[in-house]
Amino acid sequence: MSTDRLQRLQNNIKEAGVGGIAVNAGPSLNYLTGLNFHLMERPVVMLFPAEGESAIILPQLEKKKLENLPYSAKVFTYGEDPAQWDDIFQRALQEMDFSHQKIGVEPRQLRLLEYNYLRLADSKIDFIDGSTVIAALRSIKDRGEIDCMRKAVKIAENALEETLAITRIGMSEKEIASELFLQLIRGGSEMSLPFSPIVASGPNGANPHSTPSSRKLSSGDLLIIDWGARYGGYASDLTRTFGVGKIDGEAEKIHKTVQQANAAGRVAGRPGVPCSSIDQAARKCIDDAGFGDFFTHRTGHGIGMECHEEPYIREGNEQLLEVGMAYTVEPGIYLAGRNGVRIEDDVIVTADGSESLSTMDREIRYIE
Amino acid sequence: MSTDRLQRLQNNIKEAGVGGIAVNAGPSLNYLTGLNFHLMERPVVMLFPAEGESAIILPQLEKKKLENLPYSAKVFTYGEDPAQWDDIFQRALQEMDFSHQKIGVEPRQLRLLEYNYLRLADSKIDFIDGSTVIAALRSIKDRGEIDCMRKAVKIAENALEETLAITRIGMSEKEIASELFLQLIRGGSEMSLPFSPIVASGPNGANPHSTPSSRKLSSGDLLIIDWGARYGGYASDLTRTFGVGKIDGEAEKIHKTVQQANAAGRVAGRPGVPCSSIDQAARKCIDDAGFGDFFTHRTGHGIGMECHEEPYIREGNEQLLEVGMAYTVEPGIYLAGRNGVRIEDDVIVTADGSESLSTMDREIRYIE
Repeated sequence: MSTDRLQRLQNNIKEAGVGGIAVNAGPSLNYLTGLNFHLMERPVVMLFPAEGESAIILPQLEKKKLENLPYSAKVFTYGEDPAQWDDIFQRALQEMDFSHQKIGVEPRQLRLLEYNYLRLADSKIDFIDGSTVIAALRSIKDRGEIDCMRKAVKIAENALEETLAITRIGMSEKEIASELFLQLIRGGSEMSLPFSPIVASGPNGANPHSTPSSRKLSSGDLLIIDWGARYGGYASDLTRTFGVGKIDGEAEKIHKTVQQANAAGRVAGRPGVPCSSIDQAARKCIDDAGFGDFFTHRTGHGIGMECHEEPYIREGNEQLLEVGMAYTVEPGIYLAGRNGVRIEDDVIVTADGSESLSTMDREIRYIE
Repeated sequence: MSTDRLQRLQNNIKEAGVGGIAVNAGPSLNYLTGLNFHLMERPVVMLFPAEGESAIILPQLEKKKLENLPYSAKVFTYGEDPAQWDDIFQRALQEMDFSHQKIGVEPRQLRLLEYNYLRLADSKIDFIDGSTVIAALRSIKDRGEIDCMRKAVKIAENALEETLAITRIGMSEKEIASELFLQLIRGGSEMSLPFSPIVASGPNGANPHSTPSSRKLSSGDLLIIDWGARYGGYASDLTRTFGVGKIDGEAEKIHKTVQQANAAGRVAGRPGVPCSSIDQAARKCIDDAGFGDFFTHRTGHGIGMECHEEPYIREGNEQLLEVGMAYTVEPGIYLAGRNGVRIEDDVIVTADGSESLSTMDREIRYIE
């Protein structure tokens, strides 16, 4: 599989008119090699030319991982003394002969650490933003990737059902988050969750990035749970909002409105329409209900090996959807000091529309 | 507490002769502000001048977090359209007036993403490596930090005991890792573990960075478990090596040798001695036993909010230890195709020597 990815990467490199790309430890390197390197104080960088053999610079300590690399590469390893790393980068770049060429890098992944080694090693390279060269591959999911995401969604849905079964008025956000976390792992999620579950009740729900607190559920709250699993390296990212005890009419209304916005966003995607149109479809429902000022973020983001990746589902993003793209649809309404609602699904673009991988009930459910 | 940290940071900035430092989302920002921002596609950068008020650039969506900032700061927020972010960075840097000054950054943390925004915003700033300005603070742990680390060690030790109680010959590395993970969370670790547990048996143990596989424990194996917890934002990082069933004389010998090396390394630290001397003390035991070529990595690394941070315990690092520094001592012997041993403790430099926060038995224990 990864040999095929290398082939497609090299085609993209040629089309982009760059001499190659440099990728450090992170999801893109994982995608292109099948190897998993952590972002550490010891830099790992792989250099992919437009054609021919790639080169990888890594700690001697990690060399064994290369046994699983699905294609050959020139290998440059270094020891524990950082004073020698300059020299290894220099040897690798001499070998690749990238001088006087444009070489793409990923600004969202590459640290100054690796960038400085690269620049020092060959000052005649023109490093440019090559994000799209890789994103063009990663944003189109193949069948194997979609299967992993589907499984990550299923694990997440099951874990929430297990958690809801014991969730009661009086439990704290932290207790619920901790139980959900355990259920995710027990249910088969990889240990590196895409993110720690958000459990936000009552006024805490009005902060889209709230962290679980010791606040206890009480009647009248809305309860936002935003959670996900990881399977085969792929993330799920879902949100549901619950009623606690007896909620007021305003809370009911904002839940209903967000439910409509989520439904509109979920069906808006199909090949050839811009990302912005999904945002518009969801936002219109909330605007029409008079809550437009309280939907304070974009409608969604791409999802895959990273929980947030391309394509971003926001106003002004005219990137066109293609079959196999995957993204979240997560409209929300946030009423400061009172309550918040968010409902989020993971959606894949299909040949004739789009499909939500997540199917868990979106109607309001109650915790007693 | 964080106001005091700001004060000490500004003293260090002045001493270093730089105009200020720029810190992006990550452990240093957390240390300096008490606020927790994730590394995302939306950049968060805080600018600390040598004196006077700092400035923070962040998404509007995250602004609420600033309520917990322990000192005032100028706030620059942006919306969802990246096309507007340039402008916000420019306004923040104009306000800070850093032109023609040296501004320190952390190359191991700062991505090209943030760096490019900073450079574009003010091309007259000379950005330099300012890592030591912050590391000088972070590497000296205060009482509250040491208490957190002590607790993170205790949680880890308890979780391993719970896991060992059910570990038997025939269990897979993955099963053991998964159980240990659950015990860590159940025992009070924060959900963001410092790293996923390493469980490496038999020949897998000869790879220091092995990942848990479906290999089952069998008699004659050595079993390396390298694991840690997080508490109050602080990491623990421990390793113990076990015998499985009946092990041969070579396995016994390498375990005994590493145990001696670990003991020598643990007691070698005291204020004023160089990091390299701890590495030497541990390495000498392994050299003397004839296994020097099979201890393939440095003896340890600093530990705190990051699992790997300064000071690094390696040959050639002549940095002097100071009271309050914290680091791992983790010598190992790796015999390719056969077995591996590593024994790791977390050590704090005290006024008259050093103290291991971890006390779990280091004698070989057996799994049947």
